[in-house]
Amino acid sequence: MTNTTLKEIACQLGISITTVSKALKGYSDVSAKTKKAVIDLANHLNYTPNSFAVNLRTKESKTIGLIIPTLVHDFFSTVIKGILEEAEKRDYLVIILQSNEKLEFEKTQIALLLNKRVDGILMSLSNETGEFEHLKSIISHNTPLVLFDKIAKLVTCSKVTINDKKAAYDAVCYLIKKGYKKIAHFRGSYMPQNSIDRFLGYKKALEDHNIAYDSSLVFVCDNNMDFDDGYENAKKVIDEHSEIDAIFAVTDLVAIGIIKYFNEVGIIIPNQIAVLGFSNWFMSSVVTPQLSTIDQPGFEIGKRSASILFDEINLKKNNFPVVFQSIELPTYIIEREST
Amino acid sequence: MTNTTLKEIACQLGISITTVSKALKGYSDVSAKTKKAVIDLANHLNYTPNSFAVNLRTKESKTIGLIIPTLVHDFFSTVIKGILEEAEKRDYLVIILQSNEKLEFEKTQIALLLNKRVDGILMSLSNETGEFEHLKSIISHNTPLVLFDKIAKLVTCSKVTINDKKAAYDAVCYLIKKGYKKIAHFRGSYMPQNSIDRFLGYKKALEDHNIAYDSSLVFVCDNNMDFDDGYENAKKVIDEHSEIDAIFAVTDLVAIGIIKYFNEVGIIIPNQIAVLGFSNWFMSSVVTPQLSTIDQPGFEIGKRSASILFDEINLKKNNFPVVFQSIELPTYIIEREST
Repeated sequence: MTNTTLKEIACQLGISITTVSKALKGYSDVSAKTKKAVIDLANHLNYTPNSFAVNLRTKESKTIGLIIPTLVHDFFSTVIKGILEEAEKRDYLVIILQSNEKLEFEKTQIALLLNKRVDGILMSLSNETGEFEHLKSIISHNTPLVLFDKIAKLVTCSKVTINDKKAAYDAVCYLIKKGYKKIAHFRGSYMPQNSIDRFLGYKKALEDHNIAYDSSLVFVCDNNMDFDDGYENAKKVIDEHSEIDAIFAVTDLVAIGIIKYFNEVGIIIPNQIAVLGFSNWFMSSVVTPQLSTIDQPGFEIGKRSASILFDEINLKKNNFPVVFQSIELPTYIIEREST
Repeated sequence: MTNTTLKEIACQLGISITTVSKALKGYSDVSAKTKKAVIDLANHLNYTPNSFAVNLRTKESKTIGLIIPTLVHDFFSTVIKGILEEAEKRDYLVIILQSNEKLEFEKTQIALLLNKRVDGILMSLSNETGEFEHLKSIISHNTPLVLFDKIAKLVTCSKVTINDKKAAYDAVCYLIKKGYKKIAHFRGSYMPQNSIDRFLGYKKALEDHNIAYDSSLVFVCDNNMDFDDGYENAKKVIDEHSEIDAIFAVTDLVAIGIIKYFNEVGIIIPNQIAVLGFSNWFMSSVVTPQLSTIDQPGFEIGKRSASILFDEINLKKNNFPVVFQSIELPTYIIEREST
């Protein structure tokens, strides 16, 4: 590194390091002439304050860490956009890491971020994460943690979510009111809380309308809930369950896989089978037919999570007590052509 | 902050700070018993080495900065995935910033990253960026810089791109060979190099096939080259240029806007008008009809850019000279239903 140091500036001007430092900070006991000389030389030499040294003094890194399952995902991109917007307002930088839905990666990444002494951590958990010691290590390290979207109910920290159970319940009630009688659910894998909650919402809506729950109408999307999960399970529906007249999918990506398969084999949506997604990805408004779905406010989730984290960092810095928050953002059904 | 320091460990065990430090580093002049006591207590107290102090000593932050125009974008998400994968291999962390296609934001963000003393910077420029002093400040600051995708030819540093002109040339030659005679181009705005190059490739392909260039067949997508640009300009094509039989769009998002409008008004693709995109977003394989497009290898662009940056950081650290590289990754046409 050839970064200019205070020492070099002091040396070149024949003044003390203290005077250089004071001049750069605008102290009044340095003459205007000296200040100008220091600033001019600092600019000329591309001097920037050494942020490691500043950090060592203030014990703040002005950096937070963000761990998400995957980046190539409309929902998470939108969440990050919200987080970056909030971070910018507060002059924070964001280190982003992808767990690739792996618990092991989450553990390593947390260790890296703690070692980096980030001021706080934002996380949405991987589908594999069923133990929480690594999250508790963040808390016992006294580093603020906010979980969003895929959270762990058992971990004591602030959380920002939607009410997945209620959103799914409303979605299935909507399908029932539309007159659909044999509603299948393409559910997520057994681990993330939001996939469990969406399934429970589906089941409860059936019960409340005196429709017997039939486990053979539930198809598990365990390949990360992606396009292929939808496509492959749609085949099964046609081959094995011709009585099904509507499908409630755990995410839009799964729903788009279903639409793709039905378009290929000439099943007419929604006349023969209706399809309802979850998340409102951009893509869902451009497929044919356009996908009805549930709006999941990613940008707002990102902004609120970051905002809570920055508040907690601030309270901690000033030795004020932190009261954890659990925020549930509202969702609503977007009716398009597929239902 | 209540992070445990070496001093606290030393104090609790009644030994010197030097001994604690040596014990944690595994020095042989500390007894096994003392080492065990130190390590046990350090674990118990959640001790992590202070990375600011380590950084101050090594003058390396093991962090790089990444500035991209926008995150909610299939191509850039894929690039980031490649960058993160490469960073992980080399134990680097990545601070990600979005310029939102604004030159002013780029300037501020570079200053932030330099102030943070990142070891290197990766950038894809905003559509507004037509002056390059801020990029030169990175270089004069002696911080390695690699530009990718949207680059500035005038800036002396390593670059990773595709050959946009050749890719567009090949695309239009392909349309001509398919028998299309009146080929329109939905071009990007006048600033980013890749949008200029794609336009030049279009023009050259016409010339090489003795087709007169007609500027009224070129439509400018200056609303960030998005879905609405495609949708609105598609209307103009139908209203004002019924002779057009094919459209080469600057990006898939624009092409999908075109498809959407044509589907709505009953124009049959490709029989009445063919549509060819650029980038191969995931979405392009799920729209109806499926979009023919050019594959732009985002993941590979991310990996190569990061890999070159880490090599340059390493060379610089060891005072070896750096030879800048200009890498052009190959592209190819993906033929689907829209042509």
